[in-house]
Amino acid sequence: MQSQTSQLQTSVNLDFAQYTSMIQFWMEIDKLKQVERKTKILGQSRYENSAEHSWQLAIGVLTLQPFLGEHLDYFKMVKMMLIHDLVEIDAGDVIAFDLVARAAIEEKEKAAAERIFGLLPSPLGKELLALWQEFEAGETEEAQYAKMIDHIMPMILNIHNNGQSWRENGIAYEQVVKRGEMAQKMMPELWQEIDKKLQHAKRDGWLK
Amino acid sequence: MQSQTSQLQTSVNLDFAQYTSMIQFWMEIDKLKQVERKTKILGQSRYENSAEHSWQLAIGVLTLQPFLGEHLDYFKMVKMMLIHDLVEIDAGDVIAFDLVARAAIEEKEKAAAERIFGLLPSPLGKELLALWQEFEAGETEEAQYAKMIDHIMPMILNIHNNGQSWRENGIAYEQVVKRGEMAQKMMPELWQEIDKKLQHAKRDGWLK
Repeated sequence: MQSQTSQLQTSVNLDFAQYTSMIQFWMEIDKLKQVERKTKILGQSRYENSAEHSWQLAIGVLTLQPFLGEHLDYFKMVKMMLIHDLVEIDAGDVIAFDLVARAAIEEKEKAAAERIFGLLPSPLGKELLALWQEFEAGETEEAQYAKMIDHIMPMILNIHNNGQSWRENGIAYEQVVKRGEMAQKMMPELWQEIDKKLQHAKRDGWLK
Repeated sequence: MQSQTSQLQTSVNLDFAQYTSMIQFWMEIDKLKQVERKTKILGQSRYENSAEHSWQLAIGVLTLQPFLGEHLDYFKMVKMMLIHDLVEIDAGDVIAFDLVARAAIEEKEKAAAERIFGLLPSPLGKELLALWQEFEAGETEEAQYAKMIDHIMPMILNIHNNGQSWRENGIAYEQVVKRGEMAQKMMPELWQEIDKKLQHAKRDGWLK
């Protein structure tokens, strides 16, 4: 995947003076559009990719503001959502429920973050790398809400899409509940509504 | 396209208490992943869609900060980029160079904005509608920079992708230069570098 862009280069000189690294970064992140997830677009046969997923989560952050109040840094959360999956350009997407595979790619993701954000000059590259690390660590309130949205969006999509990725991957109700732990703590009323649908999904056979 | 989500609904009750309209909005915007643009993913046979395009522009805003300084409201610009194409869910994507067709869908886009942002409760829905209107009007500095990025990103993608969408749509050098007017005014040094590539693209036959 790495060499696609360079294969395409013709005689056009791709030096953009002081803007070169910015534009190289724009072209590098284009590859995230190729990283396929396990969830399909609602009502469609196509799987969603990590770029459009990141976009949906960023908007998700904006719509939570009326419920979560003014004390959170929403711009920080939006930035986290926009960049949180960029490491998949090198490390690929691993389904959330495969905990062994997810642990195995951790080092690969760290190296990917260094490489990809390292394409940008400092301090911007360092700022985005630090934001990605903050998201991964999940210790600040912003990182926790951002992770929570990342965890519940695929559930909500599945609830509206006949349990598509749960059924395709043989996921059990208990696995989804485990994935909802942060939502349960942070937005218990929302979680209660989601959980009703999960129980229904289990009765309907969408979840094991 | 409107009825897909409802067709899918089984017996699962999709009432999420006070979160219902937020979640309906999340599911409504999922449709933007189906709106195909004229530009392909770098090195791939697939056309990009307006959701992943919006994501790439939102990150583009973040990377311009080192060049444009601190006086701009970057969060506002990121929000504009995230939502600027949502009206295409109802109105579709029209190529930037078809000025007649673009003028013709203006009313349709305005109605789409009212409908889509109207799914959200106030004041959030009204805030996002006002942001979309500010972007469209292009009068504030933030709206102008946001529009500028929207105008140059497809050029940069074409420059790195053998002029794919220019060649497929028979676009002339002069049309692209016209589309670059804001960039020429607002970031003349960047425009100079882009224009060198456009001239090269014309010599290579990528542009008429």
